[in-house]
Amino acid sequence: MQSKLVGSMREAIRLAGLRSGMSVSFHHHLRNGDYTLNMVLEQIAEMGIRDLTLNASSIFDIHAPALEEHIRNHVVSRICTNYMSAGLGRRISEGLMEAPVEFRTHGGRPRDIALGVTPIDVAFVAAPTADCAGNCSGKYGPSACGSLGYAFPDAMYAKKVVVITDNLVDYPMQDWSIPEIYVDYVVQVPAIGNPGGIVSGTTKITRDPVGLVMAERAVQVIQNSGLLKDGFSFQTGAGGASLAAAKFLMDVMLKEKIQGSFASGGITGYLVDMLNAGCFRSLMDVQCFDLKAVESIRSNPAHQEISAMQYASPSAASAVVDRLDVVILGATEVDTDFNVNVHTDSNGSIMGGSGGHSDTAAGAKLSMIIAPLFRARLPIVTDRVSCISTPGRDVDVLVTQRGIAVNPKNAELRQRLKDAGLPVVDIHELKEIAERITGRPEKLPEGGRPVAKVIYRDGTQIDTIRCVASK
Amino acid sequence: MQSKLVGSMREAIRLAGLRSGMSVSFHHHLRNGDYTLNMVLEQIAEMGIRDLTLNASSIFDIHAPALEEHIRNHVVSRICTNYMSAGLGRRISEGLMEAPVEFRTHGGRPRDIALGVTPIDVAFVAAPTADCAGNCSGKYGPSACGSLGYAFPDAMYAKKVVVITDNLVDYPMQDWSIPEIYVDYVVQVPAIGNPGGIVSGTTKITRDPVGLVMAERAVQVIQNSGLLKDGFSFQTGAGGASLAAAKFLMDVMLKEKIQGSFASGGITGYLVDMLNAGCFRSLMDVQCFDLKAVESIRSNPAHQEISAMQYASPSAASAVVDRLDVVILGATEVDTDFNVNVHTDSNGSIMGGSGGHSDTAAGAKLSMIIAPLFRARLPIVTDRVSCISTPGRDVDVLVTQRGIAVNPKNAELRQRLKDAGLPVVDIHELKEIAERITGRPEKLPEGGRPVAKVIYRDGTQIDTIRCVASK
Repeated sequence: MQSKLVGSMREAIRLAGLRSGMSVSFHHHLRNGDYTLNMVLEQIAEMGIRDLTLNASSIFDIHAPALEEHIRNHVVSRICTNYMSAGLGRRISEGLMEAPVEFRTHGGRPRDIALGVTPIDVAFVAAPTADCAGNCSGKYGPSACGSLGYAFPDAMYAKKVVVITDNLVDYPMQDWSIPEIYVDYVVQVPAIGNPGGIVSGTTKITRDPVGLVMAERAVQVIQNSGLLKDGFSFQTGAGGASLAAAKFLMDVMLKEKIQGSFASGGITGYLVDMLNAGCFRSLMDVQCFDLKAVESIRSNPAHQEISAMQYASPSAASAVVDRLDVVILGATEVDTDFNVNVHTDSNGSIMGGSGGHSDTAAGAKLSMIIAPLFRARLPIVTDRVSCISTPGRDVDVLVTQRGIAVNPKNAELRQRLKDAGLPVVDIHELKEIAERITGRPEKLPEGGRPVAKVIYRDGTQIDTIRCVASK
Repeated sequence: MQSKLVGSMREAIRLAGLRSGMSVSFHHHLRNGDYTLNMVLEQIAEMGIRDLTLNASSIFDIHAPALEEHIRNHVVSRICTNYMSAGLGRRISEGLMEAPVEFRTHGGRPRDIALGVTPIDVAFVAAPTADCAGNCSGKYGPSACGSLGYAFPDAMYAKKVVVITDNLVDYPMQDWSIPEIYVDYVVQVPAIGNPGGIVSGTTKITRDPVGLVMAERAVQVIQNSGLLKDGFSFQTGAGGASLAAAKFLMDVMLKEKIQGSFASGGITGYLVDMLNAGCFRSLMDVQCFDLKAVESIRSNPAHQEISAMQYASPSAASAVVDRLDVVILGATEVDTDFNVNVHTDSNGSIMGGSGGHSDTAAGAKLSMIIAPLFRARLPIVTDRVSCISTPGRDVDVLVTQRGIAVNPKNAELRQRLKDAGLPVVDIHELKEIAERITGRPEKLPEGGRPVAKVIYRDGTQIDTIRCVASK
């Protein structure tokens, strides 16, 4: 049998048959500590390969400078991603690329990979531990990142798969996540990333009093929703107020002795605490947000890794998001139709992406947005979001520091919250309060040509992001 | 979200859209204790569905009476399988079915399922534990059978998948093998099988002195092959002499302090003992042969479940069998070209099948057949096997009680064994010794029409089994 171990990245790229015009993919579990995307693209550029489609589950600031250069040099001509932080996002919004970026969701990406909408020629899997056959895991090794959930569709459907590791162990490794059956080549490198970088800046509980008020209100909404009982399932983002809500929810669940079924999504240490305290029977982990989560998924069998398909794909027979009772999500803007923007900032410039936002909003029985009425003197609640990331039909509640707005489609919930004495207000009222404080925002200037498409989890385009003037 | 739990088998079959002429599949981890194949076919027959292709990884005697009836009634018109015990095998050989049975190997079956050669409309997965979304495992529950390895390709590639369980647990179950993403329906039944029946009659060490002599010789061959060193990998069948060889091998490995890498395939308690004694770092388990193996795979993380693809599929990027150093296999006949028959008995009647025989023989560096020179006064070593299950080019050594024959293609091994003073003889000599004792066997009468095709792991037909006169 031919060995899959190759001596260099260059050799792996050559053997995988990568040529100009093809598609390469990356996953983002090493987040802002990832070295592999830059490493691979640099090699590809040196080899004279051009005009690639880059399909990356997310793109972080660590990738921005090099990626900008590769775009300018036409090594990368098209980008598909579920999230793009502001570093590259700003450049894209200023018109760096000719072809519009395709934004998908964490569930839509595996759907479109599986259905062949976005075929991948060569997938690069950053693997904190691997053996010579390509069995690999994120749980072990010096660059351990925990779950490899987003890498599963890439490994399963790409024509060729290259595993990149800095911790090569004897065959067969124990407790692999992705099995050798999908892996064509294995490359050993000195370091795939800096595990310190996998901790996002937003994975700490807020100390902001406004955030704490919103978190408390959010938990009151959950308590009065009728959903908080044994078997309860929950997801929350890694924003400061969302994490504070998780902490308050834990206190309630322990006090009321409620045993939930699972918490899902990107997992933080706060959810690990809830698992260990008995609030949930299991964590369903597609991505570890911090090192406490990495340690937990390695050592606690109740903390389970799930693939991106199992997390959220609409083409899977079922996905975890479809069994969620409650999800708490953030927003950069919410409009009076409950549409949510998490793609662009107040200038209309790209600084995020849906990730699992619209997947969980679609799946959960109660989708709650936590957002302050304004940030930096700009209102968050507006007439119309500048970009629809998640359609308002999938949002049930908006929690702000000045009141709770319930989507009119959910009259029963509205009544429950009112009966509980919670400050339920009309969302138009929230908009007016915000504008009274901040003043009516200037309308964004009409954008230029399209720089990105927002593709909903079912494959349809739900919005277009347009060019902004460069600053 | 629509529930996958359906109230009855009939309802599951109806919802899965099964119609006459389609293909259904089953896996065989419950072996001769399996209730599900009969249960499903009975329901299908009642529903008036006819002319099905039955794709079962193996068929045991427990299935024979009902299956014979369903064949006579034209509910089942075609059979694809990797193994068929004598109960049904004899009837097939007597001409029960019009269409020849298609025999594949444990690696060829997932290959042909993945490539669409043998598409499956509805797969039925007998799951000792499952949750309402279809996440399921063989490790837990009253009918625990351990690995579900052979069910993976069925679950992954069938158009519809029905999980049948007698142990439905809360969502999400812990430590699933097959994830919900593949499962369409879940049916709860009183019992999926009798776990006592999963123990094959051949999973005990032989007490037969001839068998013990062969086992000792086999281990001497391994010791002198140059392969028995740290990192050694090993597989053996569940026949009495093979298991005795495993036991003797364990003694040698412990005495010489050799730590192997893995043992693979169908796993018995003897291999579990070797794992626990430190002879191997890992077991790669596609099927548990006894309850000690079931207990081990449930509790020991070094005892790892592998899918049929990872075990042996030639269409996977790599498979475990390709990393085997030594495999010990049985035979009902071996000919002077080292071709091996494990499909038919001395009358030419079906009583077995390749299983992983030719997969491991192709993959292992040293493929060893253990067989006595004769059984019941019939010679085992012959001029020409009546059915080629594994081609002689993949067989290195034949070990009998009267000497060891080495395939001439492997001159180096032959010299090593001679140098070690082992009784190396020409295979023609073994044939003559056998015939001197038993007399020259009557040539089997020319068979009638084809009743089965033997399809090698690469998809090519390597032999045909013909009709025998019924007794």
